Amino acid sequence: MLLKYKNEIDHHLELFIDQLPNLSIYDPIKYIVKLGGKRFRSSLVLLASDLYGAQPLAAINEAIAIELFHNFTLIHDDIMDDAPLRRGEKSVHNKWTSDIAILSGDLLYALVNKILAKSQSNVIHCLFHQTAIEVCEGQSLDMEFEGELDITIDQYIQMIKLKTAVLVGSSLKIGSLIGKSDQINAQLMYDFGLFLGISFQIHDDILDVYPIGETFGKQIGGDILEKKKTVLLIELFSNFSRDEKLRFVSMLDNAQINNKDKVKEAKSLYSQYNVLEKAEDLKKNYFKKSLDCIEQLTLEENKKKQLFDFAHKLMNREN
Amino acid sequence: MLLKYKNEIDHHLELFIDQLPNLSIYDPIKYIVKLGGKRFRSSLVLLASDLYGAQPLAAINEAIAIELFHNFTLIHDDIMDDAPLRRGEKSVHNKWTSDIAILSGDLLYALVNKILAKSQSNVIHCLFHQTAIEVCEGQSLDMEFEGELDITIDQYIQMIKLKTAVLVGSSLKIGSLIGKSDQINAQLMYDFGLFLGISFQIHDDILDVYPIGETFGKQIGGDILEKKKTVLLIELFSNFSRDEKLRFVSMLDNAQINNKDKVKEAKSLYSQYNVLEKAEDLKKNYFKKSLDCIEQLTLEENKKKQLFDFAHKLMNREN
Repeated sequence: MLLKYKNEIDHHLELFIDQLPNLSIYDPIKYIVKLGGKRFRSSLVLLASDLYGAQPLAAINEAIAIELFHNFTLIHDDIMDDAPLRRGEKSVHNKWTSDIAILSGDLLYALVNKILAKSQSNVIHCLFHQTAIEVCEGQSLDMEFEGELDITIDQYIQMIKLKTAVLVGSSLKIGSLIGKSDQINAQLMYDFGLFLGISFQIHDDILDVYPIGETFGKQIGGDILEKKKTVLLIELFSNFSRDEKLRFVSMLDNAQINNKDKVKEAKSLYSQYNVLEKAEDLKKNYFKKSLDCIEQLTLEENKKKQLFDFAHKLMNREN
Repeated sequence: MLLKYKNEIDHHLELFIDQLPNLSIYDPIKYIVKLGGKRFRSSLVLLASDLYGAQPLAAINEAIAIELFHNFTLIHDDIMDDAPLRRGEKSVHNKWTSDIAILSGDLLYALVNKILAKSQSNVIHCLFHQTAIEVCEGQSLDMEFEGELDITIDQYIQMIKLKTAVLVGSSLKIGSLIGKSDQINAQLMYDFGLFLGISFQIHDDILDVYPIGETFGKQIGGDILEKKKTVLLIELFSNFSRDEKLRFVSMLDNAQINNKDKVKEAKSLYSQYNVLEKAEDLKKNYFKKSLDCIEQLTLEENKKKQLFDFAHKLMNREN
């Protein structure tokens, strides 16, 4: 359903890349944009502006700004997360150096700001920059949680809300505002995106351990081995004493145990404590909240249906 | 002369810091702002807006945005330059970690954008963001030049223009535009800052080896030991064959030779090839260009005198 938007965005991203100067610091920017992606956030900008009656592509600049901002965060996050790969290819800091990844990320963010400055709406500028602030705050919480054993579900939700969901919410709100949406509807679209983003991230955490369909040789339980604070681990830990948490972590650190057995042990504990069911409940809870927002929108039923379909499709994806 | 502006800026930076959230990722931002500084760029914003008849402090937001943007670049540059110290205290990545320095820098840049968004002028937004792009380009050239032996003076000027001078030019242009300056005067103010910034950077390179007045135990020739591509080294190398350049670099790399002797040897070559005189000529040339811009401004003579005085004072500073 979002494919027509993705095609438009890919086309405009190509135009963006083509007009970049021939200076080597632009190479990592061209590289990461060409790595592709679902263009999910930027497609939502165009979808929302369409639903609220904007001229076709009236929101293309803002959509491109959102997509490039997301790519900027990927470049810097991959340095911080020490991630060697991005979309199956070398991450920027791995292909070049950390210094070049820092600087090309900064440059990309500056380019984003220049694109956004073409938009005349101060409300959109403020929302965009506030969102950028929150995304950084979310990443900082994620990093802080790394060494922590006592994260609560509320803290986890707050973290993924900031790190992931606010940008989804903003994409929808910005698109709506470029259309003819009033403030109430724009805020409902934001909330729809926020709740959907949260449930999407919980879904993502679950898929890592309980994939649907073919996994094409993908490592099952990669998050477990990385000791990532996923909803599953946090749910499990909520049943554990401090000693039990430490014992679990040292099992994961134990070089004598192979990865398959580590994942097996974790899954066995997940099942013993009904962790999957609790995570699914949480996911459904946020998903329902997101659908409730759609209900409240002042939109024709066929347009609401587009949003329902999109939300359901997103949550039924296999990877 | 700029002291009254510095005081205003320090006060408003304090207000800025006071309203930041109590989240640990904000600590490095509070830290670097509290490290102080001359507030040179932001003072120029206020000076220019005053000269062109703006209401007092009409440009304070833009001034704060410029100052904080400069601080953001310091955080990230210090990572890339591996600099342990900033204003005599630990640099951010040294006091915390590189990851936290990357992220708090990104966050600071996002905060800058939010402050700037309060300004209603699209012209100012575009100029600011274009300048940010150029500052990143300048830093990338500086990094590229590190491993290069065959940098020309023209390449060096282009690098310091982007890395340092455009932000000085923009500060003056933004201030002028917030005042009642027309486009021609605003551009002349920009050019004044651009040429002054270039001659200021050349001056800086010279001071490292030929300090004026007391040096308070400061390492003389620190740039030489770091093999920085300063105007002095580039002038020297313009006389050298490739072999001579390599021999000079290996002398600097030689652990058997102590630092004092390395600096002595470099200074002896500088003097043999009249490097200081050539650098001084270049500096004076750009300084003269900057003064020519002042002459052409549509401003009362007493106001022009303020700019002349400022320019002369800047170039007579001892450190």
